[in-house]
Amino acid sequence: MMRILVLNLGSTSFKCKLYQMSPVEVQLASGGVESIGGHGRYVVQAGEKRREGECACKTHLDALELFLEALGDLGMSMDREALDAVGYKAVHGGSLSGAHLVDDALMEQMDKMAVFAPAHNPVYLSMMRSVRERYDRIRQIACFETAFHATMPLERAVYGVPYAWAMEDGLRRYGFHGSSHSYIAWKMGQIAPHARRVISAHLGGSSSLCAILDGQSVYNTMGATPQSGLFHNNRVGDLDVFCLPALIQRLGGLEEAMKALSTQSGLLGLSGVSNDLREVEQAAEEGNDQAALAVKALVDEVVGYTGMLTAYLGGLDALVFTGGIGFNGAKFRRKVVGKLGFCGARIDDTLNYQGYEGLINAADSDIEIWALQTNEELMVARACVRLLKGC
Amino acid sequence: MMRILVLNLGSTSFKCKLYQMSPVEVQLASGGVESIGGHGRYVVQAGEKRREGECACKTHLDALELFLEALGDLGMSMDREALDAVGYKAVHGGSLSGAHLVDDALMEQMDKMAVFAPAHNPVYLSMMRSVRERYDRIRQIACFETAFHATMPLERAVYGVPYAWAMEDGLRRYGFHGSSHSYIAWKMGQIAPHARRVISAHLGGSSSLCAILDGQSVYNTMGATPQSGLFHNNRVGDLDVFCLPALIQRLGGLEEAMKALSTQSGLLGLSGVSNDLREVEQAAEEGNDQAALAVKALVDEVVGYTGMLTAYLGGLDALVFTGGIGFNGAKFRRKVVGKLGFCGARIDDTLNYQGYEGLINAADSDIEIWALQTNEELMVARACVRLLKGC
Repeated sequence: MMRILVLNLGSTSFKCKLYQMSPVEVQLASGGVESIGGHGRYVVQAGEKRREGECACKTHLDALELFLEALGDLGMSMDREALDAVGYKAVHGGSLSGAHLVDDALMEQMDKMAVFAPAHNPVYLSMMRSVRERYDRIRQIACFETAFHATMPLERAVYGVPYAWAMEDGLRRYGFHGSSHSYIAWKMGQIAPHARRVISAHLGGSSSLCAILDGQSVYNTMGATPQSGLFHNNRVGDLDVFCLPALIQRLGGLEEAMKALSTQSGLLGLSGVSNDLREVEQAAEEGNDQAALAVKALVDEVVGYTGMLTAYLGGLDALVFTGGIGFNGAKFRRKVVGKLGFCGARIDDTLNYQGYEGLINAADSDIEIWALQTNEELMVARACVRLLKGC
Repeated sequence: MMRILVLNLGSTSFKCKLYQMSPVEVQLASGGVESIGGHGRYVVQAGEKRREGECACKTHLDALELFLEALGDLGMSMDREALDAVGYKAVHGGSLSGAHLVDDALMEQMDKMAVFAPAHNPVYLSMMRSVRERYDRIRQIACFETAFHATMPLERAVYGVPYAWAMEDGLRRYGFHGSSHSYIAWKMGQIAPHARRVISAHLGGSSSLCAILDGQSVYNTMGATPQSGLFHNNRVGDLDVFCLPALIQRLGGLEEAMKALSTQSGLLGLSGVSNDLREVEQAAEEGNDQAALAVKALVDEVVGYTGMLTAYLGGLDALVFTGGIGFNGAKFRRKVVGKLGFCGARIDDTLNYQGYEGLINAADSDIEIWALQTNEELMVARACVRLLKGC
């Protein structure tokens, strides 16, 4: 009986899922903690049982402890060190991709790549160090978000920079959100195997589109770092690099500029309202022009990139919406599909609002349109199992 | 009889066309000087008469003098100050777009925007100052390359940055190559008025694609500066802005990084061979893998952006190839169209190699494909006339 605990960390948030991976794959429990570092809330679910409340976790390690204690309270008390592994949905390992045991060399590489993923790598590194210190015997495995995109053709991965920069400093496109997009690729292989050319649109706090051909990634809208591509909740997305000198002048330095681009930009910066699309949409409906502009801009970027990825796929069979906005944002989906006339996409207004997983296209649509929930943690758990069995 | 001399300047090159704009539009002469600052060549053509040879122009003003003297030798001697205007295919005026008389305020604005267009603005500014000093009475008119894209929807022009940065510092998409794309829009209106949704692919020393809907630009692949979008002969094109810290570290400073991105990158940097596509294609055919990668990468970017622009247009009626590579590069066109299956584009191999302007698609192509020569100077001359008549 193999047990894997998968951690999905944000700068002040903690999410986890506990899996039994053999003899059959079962999700045993899940948990979440918000507002780490201040006063927040937690929720833990194990089967039908649920426990939630207020909490004040100082660190991500505190959040993990809280989760494990709550599990005990729900009757699932477990020896921490009996876990087969803690798996991380780790983000940027540069040339290090796929699943790897966490050791000094790996942490050093993640530290080196932190400049490329300032919102992600440091929080994972800190947690890995804490877990190692506290639980000497637990195996930790990092599954990098770039792994699924290793099949992207090299000519699509390079930027127009001297080749040595790509080779020596890793200035190339990697693609991210690999756990989510690989789940969609796997799921579509199960439920719609006839769809060879698929776009997976993961829209949420961070957003990216992935072009999937015969189950393999051939493009992702995120490039060298998870700040690029579509704009995100508070991260910039694509920006002309020659804007930097003006921005550095405005903000007083390179560090200040990169910080503002990864914390004060995206939907939050453009709308001036919130980093949460629901609040921005609400403000737009109440007449806030800047909020309306931000929503339109995000729709427009999704539409444009859908065109680009369709070209890379040589046509489109299915478009899948997933992620927080992608799965729940029916209004947003409707706006996007309304502008996809170029590929004959038509949404069904009833199905679009149904709120459960499935097909949502109109009968006369030229492509299938799906709303699916993603399961990033499951893909991390599976990668951990493959690594452990190979060990 | 209105006479306009249009100047098109590169860092070490000078091109010009002399027009009579009324009562009928006639190109009277054209000229070009290469390798300004060193030993170069010049060519001047007036009707059937041609003069060419070696030269050693120290400045762009010397090149202008050489052109005017050669015109005299060809029997077209003219009083310099009888020109109605010198028109410039000026590049980046930020919030200043369209055609404007050159005065101190305009030059100040161009100087301010030089950080956005380091390869373009300084050379134009220097020439404007020299001409003003030498020919006090000649009217100078700057026609900014951004003007044609003023019709781009605002939600497509904004980046995912705080709205104040766009408003106060001009951090937004402008689009460039406006003279060329507006010529193609005008020309297609003459020869293919049924094509409502057109992509103009200007491929050359610098490259961009423009989405033209009913004659108006709705998108250009260049964003805030003419370094972005497709990669160029030696300029970077799109690059994840979070690559900058690593690049600054590698190269020793922000200034060094921006310089390398605008002089050592693009086709030159990626191929390691040349900034001239013909030489890179040649090297690729002779087995140079890095050169082959660079060619593939440029094809791939054109394909991807064709998809994006098709989505913005809601479908595609015609694709126009123009610019040095676009009009002359039959092999390159063939590679691009071979990957445009998503829109049913098919090229005719005989027509593609015909070498003159016209339709080059196969009979069973779902879209029209054109190879056309552009005429940027003509559009500048027309903008000058409109300004002068309005004066």
